[in-house]
Amino acid sequence: MAPAATNEGEGKPIRCKAAVARRPGEPLVIEEIIVAPPMPREVRIRVICSSLCHVDLAFSNMQDPPGFYPRILGHEAIGFVESVGKDVTEVTKGDTVIPIFLPDCGECRDCKSTKSNLCTNFPFKVSPWMLRNEKTRFTDLNGEFIYHFMSVSSFSEYTVVDVANVTKIDSDIPPDRACLLTCGVGAAWKTAGVEPGSTVAIFGLGSIGLAVAEGARLCGATKIIGVDVNPEKFVVGKKFGVTDFVHAGESENKPVSQVIIEMTDGGADYCFECVGMASLMHEAYASCRKGWGKIIVLGLDKPEARLSLSCSKVLHDGKTLQGNLFGGLKPKSHVSVLLKRYMDKELQLDQFITHEVEFKDINKAFDLLKNGQCIRCVIWMNK
Amino acid sequence: MAPAATNEGEGKPIRCKAAVARRPGEPLVIEEIIVAPPMPREVRIRVICSSLCHVDLAFSNMQDPPGFYPRILGHEAIGFVESVGKDVTEVTKGDTVIPIFLPDCGECRDCKSTKSNLCTNFPFKVSPWMLRNEKTRFTDLNGEFIYHFMSVSSFSEYTVVDVANVTKIDSDIPPDRACLLTCGVGAAWKTAGVEPGSTVAIFGLGSIGLAVAEGARLCGATKIIGVDVNPEKFVVGKKFGVTDFVHAGESENKPVSQVIIEMTDGGADYCFECVGMASLMHEAYASCRKGWGKIIVLGLDKPEARLSLSCSKVLHDGKTLQGNLFGGLKPKSHVSVLLKRYMDKELQLDQFITHEVEFKDINKAFDLLKNGQCIRCVIWMNK
Ligand SMILES: [Zn+2]
Ligand SMILES: [Zn+2]
Ligand SMILES: [Zn+2]
Ligand SMILES: [Zn+2]
Repeated sequence: MAPAATNEGEGKPIRCKAAVARRPGEPLVIEEIIVAPPMPREVRIRVICSSLCHVDLAFSNMQDPPGFYPRILGHEAIGFVESVGKDVTEVTKGDTVIPIFLPDCGECRDCKSTKSNLCTNFPFKVSPWMLRNEKTRFTDLNGEFIYHFMSVSSFSEYTVVDVANVTKIDSDIPPDRACLLTCGVGAAWKTAGVEPGSTVAIFGLGSIGLAVAEGARLCGATKIIGVDVNPEKFVVGKKFGVTDFVHAGESENKPVSQVIIEMTDGGADYCFECVGMASLMHEAYASCRKGWGKIIVLGLDKPEARLSLSCSKVLHDGKTLQGNLFGGLKPKSHVSVLLKRYMDKELQLDQFITHEVEFKDINKAFDLLKNGQCIRCVIWMNK
Repeated sequence: MAPAATNEGEGKPIRCKAAVARRPGEPLVIEEIIVAPPMPREVRIRVICSSLCHVDLAFSNMQDPPGFYPRILGHEAIGFVESVGKDVTEVTKGDTVIPIFLPDCGECRDCKSTKSNLCTNFPFKVSPWMLRNEKTRFTDLNGEFIYHFMSVSSFSEYTVVDVANVTKIDSDIPPDRACLLTCGVGAAWKTAGVEPGSTVAIFGLGSIGLAVAEGARLCGATKIIGVDVNPEKFVVGKKFGVTDFVHAGESENKPVSQVIIEMTDGGADYCFECVGMASLMHEAYASCRKGWGKIIVLGLDKPEARLSLSCSKVLHDGKTLQGNLFGGLKPKSHVSVLLKRYMDKELQLDQFITHEVEFKDINKAFDLLKNGQCIRCVIWMNK
């Protein structure tokens, strides 16, 4: 690892490099910025690496709110604690931490329960601010502020994150693997309770879909059907446990759901929507087995998108629909469990990483993702 | 019990009395009809008693399909087997049986599984025909056929039912109690797995809603909130375990969901929609707790009614939506379990019966139900 930047210092602003999204649809601009010291219950982190996901890509192109500019994107990362604000007891300088977009205050009824991962004190929203006040800790060299992203903003050498968004992990875990768990990877684990012998259909074989496949494989699912517009995804999918493939849009004039119903003799036991398209959610609902089928929505569509279900079918089909942020994982407890499984070689993460770039080449990572060439690209701050 | 009608006889048509729905919105007409002998895998039943529910009322007023005329309504009943068709081994003449609208063939993957109550061989539909062929077993004295209803048609002294719709029960169970279990009563039992200490909101305190309350009470729910447009329903509801009441439409200009969220400090753990109105399903969805709340749809809205959910809320709220015909109960196995619980005095059924009428007064039962004066009215064929 590279040594700490020379201008580190508790309570002082840090001048460092960040990749700033200045305008929608344009490449990020690497520039020098000022990172304020952490306020009470905040942590300033030196980022080791980030991985890039479609959510960053989507927000880099978003014209209207929740798209905001200038902004520092990046929400899957790992780093060292550089300094902590007042009243932070959970972590200390030098700790290895993962910032996670989903808050976990540890104190509310949800955070204390095992059933929920949605903090009541800090309900998740894609806000451009810090968690506890509508301020930013980033300014550019002209003194103009720069917005945050999903409480993480890791495309910067230093970032400030609320302690509710920070999970401490063992320092011996490879950082490029650890950062993968902060978003979709691990999604299949908790959500559906996929049983041995089940059939699973996965809509969208991006990184979340592949993670679901990996989870379903580990749970003992015997048929794991991938659905994607890109048939090359089947080649990749096989590495993660995908056993069958449906080429969306090319299935002999039949709706995808019809094909899946035929392949599974009545419908899949579990259908995961991993893209974030209302039309695919409908298709997933239709692909599920009557009587016990379960549809899990993991993808985020546009704010105005709606799922429209026939009331009569809801009643008559006996299906279950569930949505889950972060795959239903509790940030502070489950991420450690998953990392242990990785270290124990139960969970495979290595194959998710198809590309790596240096921070100065961050726009290459965006291009790779746009072109469908990569599952996950890791962006190293210093390597 | 009255003796068997003198014209009983295996393989021969029976002439008997039935209450026929001749035209939408008009009183039933008690007239003589001819009931054909049972075909293979069918059972002819002498009806002991029926109970009347809102589904009968709704279909007696329905102008267009699935409303059909002339028709014999009635779908909650108990009777004796008068004769059986070819290849019937499950029951024999003289057995006490409950005809149940939901088929259970006992042979398909669903019927054999413990997870589903939706037979694949005979998918449930509100058909005007017998289960295995598009024929009726009823004709009037002019030789015109009369339609069936929900595979039961119990508002007749004799009816013919497919063996997949017949459950044999102990003859020592009081028939007026037993017939209650053939539709909504028992709904709370299997569906949601309500845990001790849970909060439950029930939309609509008709017989299904009250049954849910009774089930939730038995499961140990500590707060059972009834929601109804009629505040008198709280008085009745208390007998079934309802602890709190929200007067729909009269809650201080707040949506019902807001009132429930405040009463439960964040939303009810389980919300049951027992009316069959898309608007109430939306309210139930909104009343449920983020993170782990579950919405169970038990009421049937019009065929064209739709439930429209924000994709983003489905993802972000982590709620579960499930529909269940017949409360998720498996007709042949769970009804016996429930009857045993009744006989063991665990499940209370007595308070559901608020009225009883003789068959000749069947239209009085419809009036009582219309006027909201009864939970369940039992119609006795011979008493
Ligand atoms: Zn919390
Ligand atoms: Zn992500
Ligand atoms: Zn069956
Ligand atoms: Zn009924």
